[in-house]
Amino acid sequence: MSRTSGAHTPDTHLCVLLQSEVVLSAFQQHKEVKLKSSPADLVTETDQRVEKILISAIRNRYPQHRFIGEESVAAGEHLELTDSPTWIIDPIDGTVNFVHRFPFVAISIAFTVNRQTQFGIVYSCVEDKLFYAQRGGGAFLNGEPLHASGQQDISRCVVVTEIGAERDDVALSTMTSNIRRLLQLPVHGVRALGTAAVDMCQVATGGADAYYHIGMHCWDIAASAIIVQEAGGVVMDTDGSEFDMMSRRVIAASSAAVADRIAQVIQAFPCCRDDEDNCGCGATGVN
Amino acid sequence: MSRTSGAHTPDTHLCVLLQSEVVLSAFQQHKEVKLKSSPADLVTETDQRVEKILISAIRNRYPQHRFIGEESVAAGEHLELTDSPTWIIDPIDGTVNFVHRFPFVAISIAFTVNRQTQFGIVYSCVEDKLFYAQRGGGAFLNGEPLHASGQQDISRCVVVTEIGAERDDVALSTMTSNIRRLLQLPVHGVRALGTAAVDMCQVATGGADAYYHIGMHCWDIAASAIIVQEAGGVVMDTDGSEFDMMSRRVIAASSAAVADRIAQVIQAFPCCRDDEDNCGCGATGVN
Repeated sequence: MSRTSGAHTPDTHLCVLLQSEVVLSAFQQHKEVKLKSSPADLVTETDQRVEKILISAIRNRYPQHRFIGEESVAAGEHLELTDSPTWIIDPIDGTVNFVHRFPFVAISIAFTVNRQTQFGIVYSCVEDKLFYAQRGGGAFLNGEPLHASGQQDISRCVVVTEIGAERDDVALSTMTSNIRRLLQLPVHGVRALGTAAVDMCQVATGGADAYYHIGMHCWDIAASAIIVQEAGGVVMDTDGSEFDMMSRRVIAASSAAVADRIAQVIQAFPCCRDDEDNCGCGATGVN
Repeated sequence: MSRTSGAHTPDTHLCVLLQSEVVLSAFQQHKEVKLKSSPADLVTETDQRVEKILISAIRNRYPQHRFIGEESVAAGEHLELTDSPTWIIDPIDGTVNFVHRFPFVAISIAFTVNRQTQFGIVYSCVEDKLFYAQRGGGAFLNGEPLHASGQQDISRCVVVTEIGAERDDVALSTMTSNIRRLLQLPVHGVRALGTAAVDMCQVATGGADAYYHIGMHCWDIAASAIIVQEAGGVVMDTDGSEFDMMSRRVIAASSAAVADRIAQVIQAFPCCRDDEDNCGCGATGVN
């Protein structure tokens, strides 16, 4: 981390680990659940509490920095990624899992300067797995270096994906058709852990060869994207173009060959960009 | 365990834990992989080795007992569940995960007398989670009692399923349509860890509310079925009839209401029973 960014990752690791105690303590308890954009888009008091504590702790140290947080945006804050140093925070990635005690939930934090991610941290709280990468510094899981599988052949791939909270017919049809088309190639299998951040980190470990998702948000995948890249993997848009964390579309893969093949096979459905409230597509925007 | 069965579960736990060392040691290494029924139906030397060691150790102690093992059946042994004491063994459930190092693989062992399961053990090796249940004695995870969620409302359920190794059009179409129909109910989410045994145990923990699968084999789910039942969950056929571990169809759920609702929504595709080599349906039999 250069001095220009003014942010230090060990501080952030500590902050994340401290907040994971809050998440783990609440994990076993009954939660009051509220709905957001759909019957499957949930939020709890813990999501909101963890985000507030994280932002407050970081702002205290870096008062000039900006923040993009899932729950702040849900509460009406404008979402805009600028050149300023910015923290992109998902306090609990996998809130449905958290509510159900399905044992995969993560705190995800990315830090950007000039719209470029400098480092990313994904802490899978129940598994006690801390994924971390710094630009140009490699990717690590609990301190051990991570390497994507390097697999080039789609027919030998394990692919991870998520349906997410979308429940309209076009989105569901498109997503299940995408899964069918990939299986017909064939691929070795399709997996879904219920948290985009942890799913995507499987590509960094080499345990999965690809992850794709349409309809997620920037806070779900900003940290995992640099973790995959620093592990030697490839990240791109589902249309084959350059990765844009605001586009709500991502492919992360072991190689460009696998990413390209997935981009050829899957179709996207309309969803507004994260940084456009009303794009006119008629589908869901920020939620 | 009554004296009539002559089998003791602590011995079996120890045997499973010892074999998990073999699985974990091989997990990190390069594997020679062979195909079985489809490009996604894999087997390694470790599957075969672990099954042979388990059967040999148990047979040494219980020479009169019978065995149904995934790899023995794949090698041509006749599959028949009789009234005799019988061990049903999957040496590595999640072989695709094992080959890829996707971190969910399990050793699954069930013991039946008079075709009724007496106890079941699922050891998720990488997670170090030992799921266990004995008929009438409750279900446990690493010694802690397990309880299904008791959820009655399908629209609040997390559902786990697997596509498995089937790759023909009818099977893939049916399976992806089933996922779409469940999501449209809606359900809270669909998950897939890549091992039927561990997936199904999530229902016993209460972390998931339901699991269903069409096309799996008896060794994939025999142990998990009693674990779910002893945790207070319900196990049935996907057509709503009584659970039959040879039928290659299963729903495990938090409640009869949820199991019934899933049975109404999903469709099955033809696949021969585990104990019928040529049923005439034209689809895959034992593989």
